[in-house]
Amino acid sequence: MQDWPGLIEAYRRWLPVSERTPVITLREGSTPLIPAPVIAERIGRGVKVYLKYDGLNPTGSFKDRGMTMAISKAKEAGSEAVICASTGNTSAAAAAYARRGGMRAFVLIPDGYVAQGKLAQALLYGAEVIAIQGNFDKALAIVQEVANKYPVTLVNSVNPYRLQGQKTAAFEVVDALGEAPDWLCIPVGNAGNISAYWMGFNEYLKEGHCRKLPRMMGFQAAGSAPLVLGHTVEQPDTIATAIRIGNPVNREKALNVRSESGGNFMAVTDAEIIDAYKLLGSGEGVFCEPASAASVAGLLKHHQEVPQGATVVCVLTGNGLKDPTTAIENNDARFHTGLEADTAKVAEVMGF
Amino acid sequence: MQDWPGLIEAYRRWLPVSERTPVITLREGSTPLIPAPVIAERIGRGVKVYLKYDGLNPTGSFKDRGMTMAISKAKEAGSEAVICASTGNTSAAAAAYARRGGMRAFVLIPDGYVAQGKLAQALLYGAEVIAIQGNFDKALAIVQEVANKYPVTLVNSVNPYRLQGQKTAAFEVVDALGEAPDWLCIPVGNAGNISAYWMGFNEYLKEGHCRKLPRMMGFQAAGSAPLVLGHTVEQPDTIATAIRIGNPVNREKALNVRSESGGNFMAVTDAEIIDAYKLLGSGEGVFCEPASAASVAGLLKHHQEVPQGATVVCVLTGNGLKDPTTAIENNDARFHTGLEADTAKVAEVMGF
Repeated sequence: MQDWPGLIEAYRRWLPVSERTPVITLREGSTPLIPAPVIAERIGRGVKVYLKYDGLNPTGSFKDRGMTMAISKAKEAGSEAVICASTGNTSAAAAAYARRGGMRAFVLIPDGYVAQGKLAQALLYGAEVIAIQGNFDKALAIVQEVANKYPVTLVNSVNPYRLQGQKTAAFEVVDALGEAPDWLCIPVGNAGNISAYWMGFNEYLKEGHCRKLPRMMGFQAAGSAPLVLGHTVEQPDTIATAIRIGNPVNREKALNVRSESGGNFMAVTDAEIIDAYKLLGSGEGVFCEPASAASVAGLLKHHQEVPQGATVVCVLTGNGLKDPTTAIENNDARFHTGLEADTAKVAEVMGF
Repeated sequence: MQDWPGLIEAYRRWLPVSERTPVITLREGSTPLIPAPVIAERIGRGVKVYLKYDGLNPTGSFKDRGMTMAISKAKEAGSEAVICASTGNTSAAAAAYARRGGMRAFVLIPDGYVAQGKLAQALLYGAEVIAIQGNFDKALAIVQEVANKYPVTLVNSVNPYRLQGQKTAAFEVVDALGEAPDWLCIPVGNAGNISAYWMGFNEYLKEGHCRKLPRMMGFQAAGSAPLVLGHTVEQPDTIATAIRIGNPVNREKALNVRSESGGNFMAVTDAEIIDAYKLLGSGEGVFCEPASAASVAGLLKHHQEVPQGATVVCVLTGNGLKDPTTAIENNDARFHTGLEADTAKVAEVMGF
């Protein structure tokens, strides 16, 4: 095994860091690219499918890629505290990296809106959580104001270093395959990650690490699909909470990615997302967040458009352990209860 | 990034596999060895501390290392189904690898004893769960009988291939450090993992990959410490459920490890485990299962025995996301609620 130093050291020359940057790392990145033979067989025609399983980052999501950059740069700038408005993957990553860097981590949330369970990680990492009267937009407005007026660094997705870190996932895909894939399927919420991947593929192409660029296929949940619909969604609604975003921050960047890559934005229903989520679990042995499964749901829905023999990478952005409730409520497992403690009886149930 | 093929391919010549073995892999292994500067500073005297974070395996625990071997060998032998009695990490790993290998996965549990939530992963991976009237010992006895009489492979810890897979964690530690550590601190339940690590270090020493062997320091929860007490514990009790085992399967092997390595078995209280668990989260930014934190709790408790300048590796066996409840109930986070949605008010709470 090669010792992996984390993505900043591994891809240092591609990132806006210098010898003065204190690298705050949990050895994020280098996540596995897992072949998906069951999904590939459903598509047929020699198509090869891989899963970029970013749920195996240290805090369980792709957010760690951006956060190692954002926090290292905050530390370099002398910041002693960071702040974000988030109830999910961002708050977990922000808290873990900030604390590791010896900084305070503030998480602003709407009062009464958020179950404490969703914050389990941020709490354990030692975040300081502030619940305000008002909705999520108000919380976002306040963290921006606080970061403008006081010595605390904003690490929400407007932080420019986040996408820099996230682009390394594209480097890893090319490093593993030896070439860029033909299609990249990716869940789209704020549209930061699709923009970051595109940046990564282009930088690698420019220096000859790959000879082509993928078509970027972004999938949104049908109830939360502003980029598919072409307008903001006021009340986004989907089981895929990590992409339940009605007004994506990176809208312009994402529209450029679509036109430059010849890609598309498409919607998948919650039912399609859950079908893909279950197939990933029971077919491939991979447990991801519901939002992550949108990439596979989209691929399966549009499988006829995939060129013969193409190589497809589906991005799985988060670990399924983040959301055990969805697994308990959505699975095809068989459950036999109340059986007599008798070997023959057990064998009978098993079909012997 | 180097493409990691999973531990069987990476360490093929050290493992009982041949060209005929179908390798069932989720790209397990190659987990990060994370420096722990905050813990090292508490110990002082130039001691270096690393965390072997095996919670970043595909199903979230070290069990994946053994299961890729056990399932691949079951597949090679023509098995179409596997069975285990487990409510935790073993059932998750067994289900994921069995399903990936196209096999059925049966999980036997005592009826009424197990919350469905503990089985979230096994269910999502498509296990078939059978709840019997009777206790856990009865479930274990039945799976052994079923595996003896019917064409189904037992993958509980008596399966001999499990420790073979698990020993690769020792290889990875040496590969990353360039030498074996002076101390290896590890949580001990069934005592399989400590035995597997010891096997791995010895095999590497024999072929010159390291020049020394570590002292093997095994830590048990005080309420579940048969190897410390020298006798079976009838009613083991600890918050660290993954090591709540009163009668370890690998007792003899583990006693040999102690004498051969000049190591020891020692007990840590639940309070010490939780202190270490919280310190790992808020100090190092690493979220592990409570049982995993026993290794760090033990190191901190016995820090005066660590030689000056020594290198210590603490094994973190599972991902904290497996048990969010413990995180929610045990953390030092600050939580402010009901605050007016006003930037100045928020800033005041933050200390500005």
